Amino acid sequence: MKLFKHALAIDEIVAVTGGEGHSKQTLKLDNVCEVSEANARSVVFCEQDRLVETLRQSQAGLILTNDAFAAHFENRNVIVCEKPYFSFMKLVSYWLSLDAGEVEYRIHPTAIIDPEARFEGEVAIGAYSVIEACTTLGKGVRIGSGCNIGKKVSIGAGSIIHNQVCIYDDTVLGKNCEIHSGVVLGADGFGYLVLDGRQTKIPQVGNVVVHDDVEIGANSTVDRATLGSTVIGKGTKIDNLVQVGHNCVIGENSVLCAQVGLAGSTIVGDYVYLAGQVGAAGHITIGSRAMVGAQSGIAGNVPAGARLFGTPAGDANQMKRVFVAQKHLPDMLRDYQKRLKERDQ
Amino acid sequence: MKLFKHALAIDEIVAVTGGEGHSKQTLKLDNVCEVSEANARSVVFCEQDRLVETLRQSQAGLILTNDAFAAHFENRNVIVCEKPYFSFMKLVSYWLSLDAGEVEYRIHPTAIIDPEARFEGEVAIGAYSVIEACTTLGKGVRIGSGCNIGKKVSIGAGSIIHNQVCIYDDTVLGKNCEIHSGVVLGADGFGYLVLDGRQTKIPQVGNVVVHDDVEIGANSTVDRATLGSTVIGKGTKIDNLVQVGHNCVIGENSVLCAQVGLAGSTIVGDYVYLAGQVGAAGHITIGSRAMVGAQSGIAGNVPAGARLFGTPAGDANQMKRVFVAQKHLPDMLRDYQKRLKERDQ
Amino acid sequence: MKLFKHALAIDEIVAVTGGEGHSKQTLKLDNVCEVSEANARSVVFCEQDRLVETLRQSQAGLILTNDAFAAHFENRNVIVCEKPYFSFMKLVSYWLSLDAGEVEYRIHPTAIIDPEARFEGEVAIGAYSVIEACTTLGKGVRIGSGCNIGKKVSIGAGSIIHNQVCIYDDTVLGKNCEIHSGVVLGADGFGYLVLDGRQTKIPQVGNVVVHDDVEIGANSTVDRATLGSTVIGKGTKIDNLVQVGHNCVIGENSVLCAQVGLAGSTIVGDYVYLAGQVGAAGHITIGSRAMVGAQSGIAGNVPAGARLFGTPAGDANQMKRVFVAQKHLPDMLRDYQKRLKERDQ
Repeated sequence: MKLFKHALAIDEIVAVTGGEGHSKQTLKLDNVCEVSEANARSVVFCEQDRLVETLRQSQAGLILTNDAFAAHFENRNVIVCEKPYFSFMKLVSYWLSLDAGEVEYRIHPTAIIDPEARFEGEVAIGAYSVIEACTTLGKGVRIGSGCNIGKKVSIGAGSIIHNQVCIYDDTVLGKNCEIHSGVVLGADGFGYLVLDGRQTKIPQVGNVVVHDDVEIGANSTVDRATLGSTVIGKGTKIDNLVQVGHNCVIGENSVLCAQVGLAGSTIVGDYVYLAGQVGAAGHITIGSRAMVGAQSGIAGNVPAGARLFGTPAGDANQMKRVFVAQKHLPDMLRDYQKRLKERDQ
Repeated sequence: MKLFKHALAIDEIVAVTGGEGHSKQTLKLDNVCEVSEANARSVVFCEQDRLVETLRQSQAGLILTNDAFAAHFENRNVIVCEKPYFSFMKLVSYWLSLDAGEVEYRIHPTAIIDPEARFEGEVAIGAYSVIEACTTLGKGVRIGSGCNIGKKVSIGAGSIIHNQVCIYDDTVLGKNCEIHSGVVLGADGFGYLVLDGRQTKIPQVGNVVVHDDVEIGANSTVDRATLGSTVIGKGTKIDNLVQVGHNCVIGENSVLCAQVGLAGSTIVGDYVYLAGQVGAAGHITIGSRAMVGAQSGIAGNVPAGARLFGTPAGDANQMKRVFVAQKHLPDMLRDYQKRLKERDQ
Repeated sequence: MKLFKHALAIDEIVAVTGGEGHSKQTLKLDNVCEVSEANARSVVFCEQDRLVETLRQSQAGLILTNDAFAAHFENRNVIVCEKPYFSFMKLVSYWLSLDAGEVEYRIHPTAIIDPEARFEGEVAIGAYSVIEACTTLGKGVRIGSGCNIGKKVSIGAGSIIHNQVCIYDDTVLGKNCEIHSGVVLGADGFGYLVLDGRQTKIPQVGNVVVHDDVEIGANSTVDRATLGSTVIGKGTKIDNLVQVGHNCVIGENSVLCAQVGLAGSTIVGDYVYLAGQVGAAGHITIGSRAMVGAQSGIAGNVPAGARLFGTPAGDANQMKRVFVAQKHLPDMLRDYQKRLKERDQ
């Protein structure tokens, strides 16, 4: 249950969500939650049959739902919206910003800021964070506690860097990005040559460039390029524990789910969807709007709009037929071996 | 080799392990180790044939073994136990606690503790850790160095938080939990809707609830719920680099090995065993006592007690037969194509 | 583009790279970059056909290339080398060291160093790092900011520990290692026994031993041994988000790509190559110079020099034939089922 500091009347909620409300004027709502934990001051949403009965028996103070479902909640406070989930999200966002109030831009006295760092407006920096030389923070940047921001880093206006993020030298981050705890941006790409029997490191002198509106989940890593830049395009969203290798170039509004790994120099288009634990080989191109099923291993180029699955990844429909057929393989083998024997006799 | 500060006589060790001891009274033991590194003051255990010869030739001061194996070590100091490994573990635990002595509950002067944080007894907090407002630490909680504990967090009595752990606001941790370095609890769940061509974030206002006796390995991540709670049940053990998505609910005494990934809203029962790198789709249920082989990809509901393997995961025995049969697939294909050709002629 | 503080004349570059140079004496170069971003002061290398045209049209100030390619760049500044990429790497390494100049060994005043820690020469320690008791740092060790180095740790001369690394007690690190941000060395191995229905922790009292010249990528984890040591051999290179389980012993000059996971007690030889997301079961041996394809799952012992692929991993060539044949499986099944039907009639 998310309890908000500011309680809202139904009329105010109607104004925010844009639906049609049936209201008891006096009621004040102060939380959003799952249907199962609702109380008389909760706002919930319903657009799924399986929730109706639980919701009818709940104390929920206000229900966002659609026209079809509204009939189930006759004597209840209801706001009828075209897209209840979307309206609910809008409400939650509004409520969060209301609670946040004016953001206080405070630099904690224990933050260590190099005299050659530059701020382009008010910024917030948490305790025990270190900002190194020649780094620029845009207006409204908020950096958590225990962060290490290297030299010549640039962070665009409005970006949020959560606690314990590590950003190596030369990284460029766009506006309104959100980087979660434990993320490491700009560590060395992974490249060695065997010389005289020893793994010898290839110097990694490129950087990482993250465009606007990117979110990167906890403990993910994006390596710097060997030369040039590893690039994350505008609006792309990366989940936790994802690895982006050196010199990868990811397009806009793509989605990389948890534990995805991209080897070096792979190019990913726009609106690509890589499900959890997908791996992609290096030096390949994944076309825009490709969708790749969980745990798939992408070994070669992927055309735009393709649906892939499996390791090595193939057309998802074909692979599904393969996986269904696979269950019969032991029987098929017995049949094959029997025929072989008959032939030999 | 683990060297302990307090040396123990064989009699004391017999008392702790509960076995039957043959003792040279004067000998003092001060370490436990692998058989190959044993010295005259080492305690080792033996219940495997392959270790006997090495152990016979070692200097090991004391051998915990069972009745069957004791014959191999005639002129040696031996304690005969029913379960040597278990007795050995008991000894090590005892010895560790003896060495630890009275725990000193010290709050490092560099720890930054919000005046609205509340301690329910003595606690230890390391250097450069930050405890935010309205957070409660139970009696005997030990927090390492460089940790960030957010607002309205609750940590139950006796829990150990190692160095550099990040706990976001609203997280609830039970008693006697152990959270290893680099763990991130409560980062935002991963949810977006495409609106007007942009990936738009779904606000994540739930939390993470971890019950008693849970251990979470280094650099693992557990995301907060979108609404409600992501839950880790009592006694469940999570290895390193594991991802638990938003709104997952994991039962009691389950085991998630390294690099397992659970997508959002998946329900895992009690005593479930997920081997390394297993992935599970979202919105599915994995029944209690299910065992899932390494790297398996769980695409749908799993009945209680099932043994699964493969991607997509199927019955482990059947999948093993499939994998054996698979090796013949190229030959089978040649046969099939030959017959096709013959038919066409 | 990597811009260096010191500009170099072509003659100097010839001296470093050892090739044969055609030089305009007055030109000074100050950066290395990808061909596509080259300016008049850039040094680039070319040994690939696909880059020739872009490079001909670029402003690149100096081109390292081989004899065969040199003809494409007639009126340009060229150094002809036997191995252009290798010569280029040498140049970059030289240039980096030139820029780095004399390393300044500074201990930040906020670093907390136990009086019982010992330094064997000049060392650098960043802000807010904590070095615990009885830990030894070799000559020239550089530790970043926000690191936690436990008790009785030993770090060999010349090793670089980047920001926010966590090293647990008793870890031994060799000389000239490089450990990236977010790495956790020495967290507890993952071992439990079910006693009276509860997952009961097996005490983990071994340690981690990392030999000389090892590099470990961001957010990787190496667990301490239960007894004895988890060992990473000399010159082995580990990428990001890799998990090395307790009691693993990895040989020399092996390469573990991103998100590889090794379960406990697995032995890996020398010059082994494990591609991204490979998993290996516990208690197995992977022979020297084995190469294992991405996402493979190694279930049993691997002979030296083997080439493996797939889950469960098999001979790479055979597995490739299996994967090719697999696409025909649905057709083969239809054929099989038709024949079954005919037989039954």
